[in-house]
Amino acid sequence: MSELPSKLLSRAVEALSGLPTIGKKSALRLAIHLIQTDPAFAKELVQSIAALVEGIRRCERCNNLSDEQCCDLCLDPRRNASIICVVESFRDVLAIEETGRYKGLYHVLGGLISPLDGIGPEDLGLEKLFDRIAEGKTQEVILALNPTMDGEMTNFYLHKKLKKYSIQISTLARGVSFGGELQYADELTLGHSIMARLPYEVT
Amino acid sequence: MSELPSKLLSRAVEALSGLPTIGKKSALRLAIHLIQTDPAFAKELVQSIAALVEGIRRCERCNNLSDEQCCDLCLDPRRNASIICVVESFRDVLAIEETGRYKGLYHVLGGLISPLDGIGPEDLGLEKLFDRIAEGKTQEVILALNPTMDGEMTNFYLHKKLKKYSIQISTLARGVSFGGELQYADELTLGHSIMARLPYEVT
Repeated sequence: MSELPSKLLSRAVEALSGLPTIGKKSALRLAIHLIQTDPAFAKELVQSIAALVEGIRRCERCNNLSDEQCCDLCLDPRRNASIICVVESFRDVLAIEETGRYKGLYHVLGGLISPLDGIGPEDLGLEKLFDRIAEGKTQEVILALNPTMDGEMTNFYLHKKLKKYSIQISTLARGVSFGGELQYADELTLGHSIMARLPYEVT
Repeated sequence: MSELPSKLLSRAVEALSGLPTIGKKSALRLAIHLIQTDPAFAKELVQSIAALVEGIRRCERCNNLSDEQCCDLCLDPRRNASIICVVESFRDVLAIEETGRYKGLYHVLGGLISPLDGIGPEDLGLEKLFDRIAEGKTQEVILALNPTMDGEMTNFYLHKKLKKYSIQISTLARGVSFGGELQYADELTLGHSIMARLPYEVT
């Protein structure tokens, strides 16, 4: 892209193109939109981003994203406080919430045990999770970490540590996706799906 | 998309998804990026957008986008001040500048004569263009408006008004694109290309 005739425009295009999936051409289109549209829109955009970056923090109980000291999910009396779903990141919370199928609480690790990256159990602040369980309300912990080597290692570590509490420890069901064709499923998943087959139910 | 656990996040996602081509899912991804990345990036993004929207104005000579009273193109002594290219919008200026082939000046109309929308010649501030030409430096005016009904009407009006000055009035060459296959060209363009054929030149 050749030099833009305005330094203000260049600067905004430069900044916008730093966003993921936004190239220079898209950034220019966005900047032009911001110039041509109602100035109130740009004002709200700028203010909402500033408020987000300055105001967002971690829930002191579950580490999830939160506007306050404690997140809405932890404070919601309709959630089932006897189940804690352990996830790697708040994005996983969003993904599970999106399904609308889970009504328990969460614990966001913010990372995984990863010897290669020098991240040990002590770096994940797991004490916070153990303290929550020690309060005695928890009946089940769902280990919902991604099935990577680090995820499996963290699962294993957590399982070992959680055994001493008299709670149920579960993990996500794995298998071929709904709507996924068998011929395109990976061998590991399909193999697991066959071995962990379930009684057929008419729905 | 289900309700987000943070009002700050919801607000930013709402604002970001007001940008063209950005849906709710992309907006969420952008907002998450802003949370997770260096806060200096978000700060620069916010400041550059605010500076753009507050600071950008129209060049008092050519109506192009400008940071100052007069735009860089009008002030650039290397540009050929004897040619004025008349375009509808500053986006056309960007497109022509992108080619790197034009070294004259511009005049941005900011609209076209459009009887259906109630836009007459008096709404386009054409006096500014005529005043520039009356200064006597101009030898050629290129009418580079889009080939729509409004564009053709504005071309016609400008041509009629400009005839009284002893200047050359030209327009963009039309024809099949470089690399465009004949079978996919529209009839009007291909017909014009045949009629306006040029001597073959070995390059």
